[in-house]
Amino acid sequence: MIVLGIDPGTASTGYGVVRGDGLGLVSLVECGVIRTKAREPLSSRLLEIYDGVAELLQRHRPDALSVEDVFYAKNVRTTVVLGHARGVVLLAGQQAKVDIFELPPAEIKKAVVGTGAATKEQVQFMLTRLLRLKSVPQPSDAADGVAAALACLMATRLPTIAQANARARVRV
Amino acid sequence: MIVLGIDPGTASTGYGVVRGDGLGLVSLVECGVIRTKAREPLSSRLLEIYDGVAELLQRHRPDALSVEDVFYAKNVRTTVVLGHARGVVLLAGQQAKVDIFELPPAEIKKAVVGTGAATKEQVQFMLTRLLRLKSVPQPSDAADGVAAALACLMATRLPTIAQANARARVRV
Repeated sequence: MIVLGIDPGTASTGYGVVRGDGLGLVSLVECGVIRTKAREPLSSRLLEIYDGVAELLQRHRPDALSVEDVFYAKNVRTTVVLGHARGVVLLAGQQAKVDIFELPPAEIKKAVVGTGAATKEQVQFMLTRLLRLKSVPQPSDAADGVAAALACLMATRLPTIAQANARARVRV
Repeated sequence: MIVLGIDPGTASTGYGVVRGDGLGLVSLVECGVIRTKAREPLSSRLLEIYDGVAELLQRHRPDALSVEDVFYAKNVRTTVVLGHARGVVLLAGQQAKVDIFELPPAEIKKAVVGTGAATKEQVQFMLTRLLRLKSVPQPSDAADGVAAALACLMATRLPTIAQANARARVRV
C-alpha cells in the first residue's frame, strides 16, 4: 500500500510518499516540497500546487491521499488562504480517484508518536526511526508530508491486514 | 467583453455571465447555481464546483472571471471550507487563462450601488435595473454571482473603453 501525504501551504506544500507492506514495515519512497513564488498571484500559485500534486499522483499511483486537516488558526486570513491550497489538493485526489483521508494534526501525532500532544521534534524523531532514515527529512514541510502519509498507514494498518486476509481467503 | 461572476460556496456556488458593450450597456447572458449534496465528502463537492465552473468557462469563453473575496467570518470553520471552494474556482480560471478579479463584498456593492454599505436588497434592485430584468435573479446566490460579474464590468469599464479606442486607432 502506497500513501501520498500532503501538508498543504501556499508558499510551500510538503509531500511524502510512503510504502507499507501491510504488516507494519514502512519505507520512504520520496519526499520534498512544492514551492511557489510569493509575488505570483494566488491563482497561479494554486495551479502550481495542483499540477505538482497531480504529477505525484500520476507518477506514484498511491492507494490513498492523506491531507493534513487544519481548521483553526490565530490568523484567520492565513487559514483561509491555506483552505484554497487544501481545496486544489483534495480536487487533484478526487480526480485521481484515490481514497482521501483528512487527518487533524493531533491525530497525525497520535498515530506516529502515540500521543496527540507530541512535539514536532518527537514526530520527526519517530518518523526517522520508523522509516530507518539517517536523518530527519528536510525541509520540515517535507517531514510534515511524510508524517501525514505515515499516520494514514498506521491508522489504516488494521483494515489493510483485514483486506490482505480477505484476499488470501479468496485465493484459497 | 464577457465576465463570469462567481459567488463561491460549498453547498451552492452562484454564477452570472454578463456582457458589456464597453460603453456602459450591460446585459445578462445566463445565471444560476452549482449545487452540491451535503452528504457527499468535501473532495467530491469540490470536484462538482470545479467541473461546473470549468464548463461555464469553456461554454462562454469570458474575458474575465470575477470571484467574490471573503476573508473574514464569524465562523472560522465555515470560512476555511469556503476557501476550499474559492481555491478550485480560481484554479479553473487560471487553467482557462482568463483575467481573474477578486473583489471584496464592499467593492462589489460600491461598484453596483455606489456605496460599500449597500444592503443585499439595494444590490439586487440595482442589478435588476441595470440589466433591465423583469425580476431579481433567483436564488440569491445566483444574484450574488451576477453582482460579482457586473461589479467587475463597472470597475473595468474605463480601461475597456481605452482598449476599444486603441483598437479603433489601429484599424485607422
